[in-house]
Amino acid sequence: MGLNDHPSFVALKNHHKTLGNFNLRQSLQDQRRYESLTVTLESITFDFSKHLVTPQTIPLLLALAQERDVAGWREKMFTGGRINTSEKRAVLHTALRAPADADIRVDGVNVIPAIHETRARMAAFADKIRSDKTITDVVSIGIGGSDLGPRFVTDALIDAHTGPVIHFVSNVDGRAILGTLKNLNPKNTLVIIASKTFTTEETMLNAAVAREWLEAGVGKGNIGTHLAALSTATEKAIAFGVTPDRIFDFADWVGGRYSLWSAIGLPVMLAVGPKIFDQLLAGAFAMDTHFRLAPLEKNIPVLMGLLGIWYRNFWNYPVHMLLPYDQRLRRLVKFIQQMDMESNGKSVNRDGQAMDVATGPVIFGEPGTDSQHSFMQLVHQGEIIPVDFIAAIKADHHLTDNHQSLLANCFAQSRALAIGQTLDEAGGDAGRVFSGNRPSTTILLPQLDAYHLGMLLAAYEHKVFVQGVIWGVNSFDQPGVELGKKLAKAILPALADGEHGEGFDLSTTHLIDIVRHA
Amino acid sequence: MGLNDHPSFVALKNHHKTLGNFNLRQSLQDQRRYESLTVTLESITFDFSKHLVTPQTIPLLLALAQERDVAGWREKMFTGGRINTSEKRAVLHTALRAPADADIRVDGVNVIPAIHETRARMAAFADKIRSDKTITDVVSIGIGGSDLGPRFVTDALIDAHTGPVIHFVSNVDGRAILGTLKNLNPKNTLVIIASKTFTTEETMLNAAVAREWLEAGVGKGNIGTHLAALSTATEKAIAFGVTPDRIFDFADWVGGRYSLWSAIGLPVMLAVGPKIFDQLLAGAFAMDTHFRLAPLEKNIPVLMGLLGIWYRNFWNYPVHMLLPYDQRLRRLVKFIQQMDMESNGKSVNRDGQAMDVATGPVIFGEPGTDSQHSFMQLVHQGEIIPVDFIAAIKADHHLTDNHQSLLANCFAQSRALAIGQTLDEAGGDAGRVFSGNRPSTTILLPQLDAYHLGMLLAAYEHKVFVQGVIWGVNSFDQPGVELGKKLAKAILPALADGEHGEGFDLSTTHLIDIVRHA
Repeated sequence: MGLNDHPSFVALKNHHKTLGNFNLRQSLQDQRRYESLTVTLESITFDFSKHLVTPQTIPLLLALAQERDVAGWREKMFTGGRINTSEKRAVLHTALRAPADADIRVDGVNVIPAIHETRARMAAFADKIRSDKTITDVVSIGIGGSDLGPRFVTDALIDAHTGPVIHFVSNVDGRAILGTLKNLNPKNTLVIIASKTFTTEETMLNAAVAREWLEAGVGKGNIGTHLAALSTATEKAIAFGVTPDRIFDFADWVGGRYSLWSAIGLPVMLAVGPKIFDQLLAGAFAMDTHFRLAPLEKNIPVLMGLLGIWYRNFWNYPVHMLLPYDQRLRRLVKFIQQMDMESNGKSVNRDGQAMDVATGPVIFGEPGTDSQHSFMQLVHQGEIIPVDFIAAIKADHHLTDNHQSLLANCFAQSRALAIGQTLDEAGGDAGRVFSGNRPSTTILLPQLDAYHLGMLLAAYEHKVFVQGVIWGVNSFDQPGVELGKKLAKAILPALADGEHGEGFDLSTTHLIDIVRHA
Repeated sequence: MGLNDHPSFVALKNHHKTLGNFNLRQSLQDQRRYESLTVTLESITFDFSKHLVTPQTIPLLLALAQERDVAGWREKMFTGGRINTSEKRAVLHTALRAPADADIRVDGVNVIPAIHETRARMAAFADKIRSDKTITDVVSIGIGGSDLGPRFVTDALIDAHTGPVIHFVSNVDGRAILGTLKNLNPKNTLVIIASKTFTTEETMLNAAVAREWLEAGVGKGNIGTHLAALSTATEKAIAFGVTPDRIFDFADWVGGRYSLWSAIGLPVMLAVGPKIFDQLLAGAFAMDTHFRLAPLEKNIPVLMGLLGIWYRNFWNYPVHMLLPYDQRLRRLVKFIQQMDMESNGKSVNRDGQAMDVATGPVIFGEPGTDSQHSFMQLVHQGEIIPVDFIAAIKADHHLTDNHQSLLANCFAQSRALAIGQTLDEAGGDAGRVFSGNRPSTTILLPQLDAYHLGMLLAAYEHKVFVQGVIWGVNSFDQPGVELGKKLAKAILPALADGEHGEGFDLSTTHLIDIVRHA
């Protein structure tokens, strides 16, 4: 049975048809609405009241969650079930956040001790580098999951930086590595190579450039103290030249886009220290606990996920936007793009059947207030795009006027989207009419520290999980990246020698020729 | 008559219905296809052959362009017609690129001499700053159109940087300005305030912080040599403390998102020098000339625009993606987001009638190959999203392996999207099936220098123009940002004193209360 025919799906379709006259402006005058549609957890407010929902909607969505057994799948994830079905792996990034006395088993073995052992090694290593001061700069080479998470969090926690400066290199475009190394002194630089398999093409090409640069700078025999690796492929890292005590590993059930919390987080730890890294984990654990135990109707990631389903499948909105009103969160969207789009941008379900409903949305956004002077025109008067507004109450700096303006603009945007402006209010100017009825969530953090950031990111991870379960897709593989890799391997020699033995399509053949003859 | 009922629109709808079995993989075996669907201009290749079009499609799209009088509106734009109808202004960013002997009149006055006069003043100023070495750092404060263009181009032309380091500050979040000033010495810093009206809230708040910082650093009486302004509001700039010879103005017919080519480009000029800035303009002028004179069927911006219409209105694809395979173009998407979404994200046409078809798409993207390790999963196996791939043949650096890998991956992605992978080819694994038939343009530059960058950006500007004309919207105003501004003004005092006199909705009231009581 396709999802379209599930009773709860049908019920939601019928319910959606009754909402033709739903008016958010009017609904927002109802005091109970805010109370019933807001969840507060450890001083973070998730305000869901500006959504296109009536008192009937959430129960119907919860019925869908029940029918799809979100609670059952959630328990499977937390307890090490092999829910990454195509790769037959457990999915245990939550174990990375669990306390030392937790007991989570895969094949009968408790995974917690190994996690804490690695973390203790990471902490000792970080403490050494941070206190020794020889290393002033760290170059972290990785791509995708080995880059986006640590890069974003390092940037977001800038107030807590007390260690070396961290530079991130991901793109295979040679300018990324060259531009970074140019200003650094190899004698004072630590190069971290982050690759689960230690075979990622981009990372290995950039790592080779960095190794050569180190060798030229400190001598071939001395690069050991300037290298570290974050990988499960210990032998490959050793073969590359990394000494075993500088290799930090993690289990195969840590997916790339969920790996920030593992050894992949080492750059963050180097920047802010082990203690603050622990706070990040503690925040994520708090959200894990909430997700696991809170009743579905007051469960933040469940509500976030269900509202996403509501817009994607019933209102047919293909895009979801994040608008962090905080400069420190300027890289958040890039991180969530991978987390969400790589997880749920799937065309078949777990059983290999073609999906009969739309899956993952396109995620985009830029920080406010910048976005207001860029693309918000379209968001107010074009395509309808649900938004997550994110802001911190505390500024953590002394420019009060700026911060008040930031918050006022954040609240004003969600209000403008919700209530709109009638032709009357626009003085009869049709160009200044705003339809309103445009939905958004406001997430208000007390302050942006490691702990609350951990909570926020875990909430998004579980939101994505909930949506994957509803759709019945495997949110933990990424077959869609493989064809491109395979075809690139075939094109590479043709670019070098001009042979087209592979029988390329004629556009590709021509493009290769243009490059060859340039 | 709505657009839906136009004969050429109806013809395209009927044509679209016949394409149910269109197979891009098969079409790409036709040699004539590449030749008929590729346009080369001054060594830039625009390969349109990987699109969902048959030999019938382009003529039908061209008929739509004719019916909507694209050529007529184009001529109006180039000759100073007041095509920004709501603001009753000409739209003459093309005049900013025109040679000194051009004659383009607004109200009977040739606008060219004033443009070149200002540019000569900019060049003299830039030469002075660049040769006198006192100024090592420039802080450019602006937002939206006064920020995105110069920031992106300064970044893209990094190879040509020979002047002071340019720092850009846009967000009202106090961290933007504080984080920038923190590492600078006021004695060696020039602060540029870029605001057409000199009233933009974010810019003026940040400018006030910068002025105070300068005053503390160099003494209240000495800030004149550390300030400059890019604005049409000369008196306001003088009142702020900028000396008249350091105010560079532009005409009211320069729209914010088209202002890079005006005095707003001064930061670029300071970074790369007047000569290279001139090359940027020359490249844009070359594309202007092509757009104005080339027959529609071989006209690059016309084809780009029509293909966008094809996907937006007939295939119903709401998102358009840019994938620059070049680290230097990492900020391109942010620039085009404003250019496209603010221009055409409209709900009424020029005459104030509600649109009966969808308008501007959502623009997003990240540089390749980073994107491949992030959201490309969804692009291959989820939602269908037309893509513009952009790459430069020449690396401009010595890492040949990296550059070949970059190009191979770029070509492989467009090929994978186009041809897909059948169940057979996937060895019977449904999870590895790729539907293919996913359209893209490949734009191949000989190299990424100022001239070719100018061409590229002008092509996008005119693409957006063409789409605006087809839809019949005014692409040059932005009423959608005003309601938010108005509401923010009302919320600001409530945040300070807790009064809710304005009768806010209850969500806004609660959010304000949370901030007040934090």
